[in-house]
Amino acid sequence: MSFDPASLKYDANGLIPAIAQDAASGEVLMMAWMNAESLARTLETGHVTYWSRSRQSFWAKGESSGHVQKLIELRVDCDRDCLLLLVEQAGPACHTNRRSCFYTAVRSGEEVEILKPMEG
Amino acid sequence: MSFDPASLKYDANGLIPAIAQDAASGEVLMMAWMNAESLARTLETGHVTYWSRSRQSFWAKGESSGHVQKLIELRVDCDRDCLLLLVEQAGPACHTNRRSCFYTAVRSGEEVEILKPMEG
Repeated sequence: MSFDPASLKYDANGLIPAIAQDAASGEVLMMAWMNAESLARTLETGHVTYWSRSRQSFWAKGESSGHVQKLIELRVDCDRDCLLLLVEQAGPACHTNRRSCFYTAVRSGEEVEILKPMEG
Repeated sequence: MSFDPASLKYDANGLIPAIAQDAASGEVLMMAWMNAESLARTLETGHVTYWSRSRQSFWAKGESSGHVQKLIELRVDCDRDCLLLLVEQAGPACHTNRRSCFYTAVRSGEEVEILKPMEG
């Protein structure tokens, strides 16, 4: 069956959550949002473009920082309301310069920083 | 710093997306939603409880099916508006009896089923 982005379930704002996972290591890097057009751009270019809810604009990941995400494979969940992006991440995915945005673990009720910002 | 569920950023409906990842294999199993109370129940019991948007009720994962998720570690992202749950998944995570909800890949513009339902 041909994949049709219009067949996905977008929320009231026309958005769908997209989880970026490192295709090689399996590390979950970040979660952000897409609309149909940002998904179309991602599939066309092979590089991930999100929709920035705060800026209300397209967010071609890494456009200014160089920390681009090359799309290796797109996956859709059973309810068609969430996307999994297997990516090749250049440098840090997080704006804090950490590899992943999920650098805070909760252990014995305490927040623990488990990733340091990357060098360079 | 003590972890306070009230410090998370919930959406207009009081919900936060939660990604469940197999703690051992790194496979992303599913994405669902939590509110502050479902997160509190998850931390108290050590088993994942979501909030079902369709049923508008707590959803103790696996309560009827036995396909429970034991919480191994909770992680919070940089914006505090998304959770990553490292879990030990009993059986399939997906209601289709597949290990993961992300069993549809898009390859060369076509949808491809990459996981079969589990036996038994």
